[in-house]
Amino acid sequence: MSHVSPRSLDDLDALASDVLDALKANGKMVATAESCTGGLICGVLTDIAGSSAAVERGFVTYSNEAKTELLGVPADMIRKHGAVSSEVAVAMADGAVSRSGADIAVSVTGIAGPGGGSEHKPVGTVYVALAGIGSNTSCVKCLFENDNRKTVRLKTVQIALNSILNALS
Amino acid sequence: MSHVSPRSLDDLDALASDVLDALKANGKMVATAESCTGGLICGVLTDIAGSSAAVERGFVTYSNEAKTELLGVPADMIRKHGAVSSEVAVAMADGAVSRSGADIAVSVTGIAGPGGGSEHKPVGTVYVALAGIGSNTSCVKCLFENDNRKTVRLKTVQIALNSILNALS
Repeated sequence: MSHVSPRSLDDLDALASDVLDALKANGKMVATAESCTGGLICGVLTDIAGSSAAVERGFVTYSNEAKTELLGVPADMIRKHGAVSSEVAVAMADGAVSRSGADIAVSVTGIAGPGGGSEHKPVGTVYVALAGIGSNTSCVKCLFENDNRKTVRLKTVQIALNSILNALS
Repeated sequence: MSHVSPRSLDDLDALASDVLDALKANGKMVATAESCTGGLICGVLTDIAGSSAAVERGFVTYSNEAKTELLGVPADMIRKHGAVSSEVAVAMADGAVSRSGADIAVSVTGIAGPGGGSEHKPVGTVYVALAGIGSNTSCVKCLFENDNRKTVRLKTVQIALNSILNALS
């Protein structure tokens, strides 16, 4: 498991390789459901040769409509809690498992900045959820303070990969 | 437009920014449909602040089932022509436009390697299609010879971004 702050997506290749090994060892396929990371989680997992044995598909649900149409996140939930919320993160991960051939799914929704922040949800607020492990979908809230857009996104990818790895260890 | 060979995804940020500017200037939203690049096209587009104004969603259809379920690529077409073919690339791009809120879509399907190559479709064979510009969906075949997996993927992202940019210029 890596906790060193990543400077580029390539810095996460070793972690992605560990995640794929863990998935294959457990006979599990993964799907991703990404908002603020925009495809980078699935992108780094598929950097590794042989990833098709463990990566089933990825949803980049950047718009709210995509979250609802592709993952079944209720539009009411987005209106009530906001797209960046634990409720939506959990619904995204649950939807990615139920609407794919994957066994587990990781989802992320957050505010990468520099715009879009508010008092209660400042830039750097990110929710990461994991579905398909045990009976309950887990969700963690992260706050990456004082990081720029690129770093918020890379750290989010790192947390998402570590979430999968921890759950399978 | 950039044609310098990219060494990391960050090297394509400037090109991604140009693509977003062109999309916004034309009032167009884009969707991505990615196989061998695994989310990197959408990932680099969303590296740019304000990308939500022009990026609607992304489909990472890594498995054949995902191509059929998410994008409507006929299973028969995949069986007949192979997942890496101009027919499938065009169907992926067409499906991404019709099954999203985007105006245009770029799709890629290819063999990044090191495995998976054959005599007629060696490693480095990639098809890039663009739908939503004019009446016909265009497709180009690329052959990245002697490049490793990472470089094939990065060059494919570059070609895909340039395809959008050229079409809007």
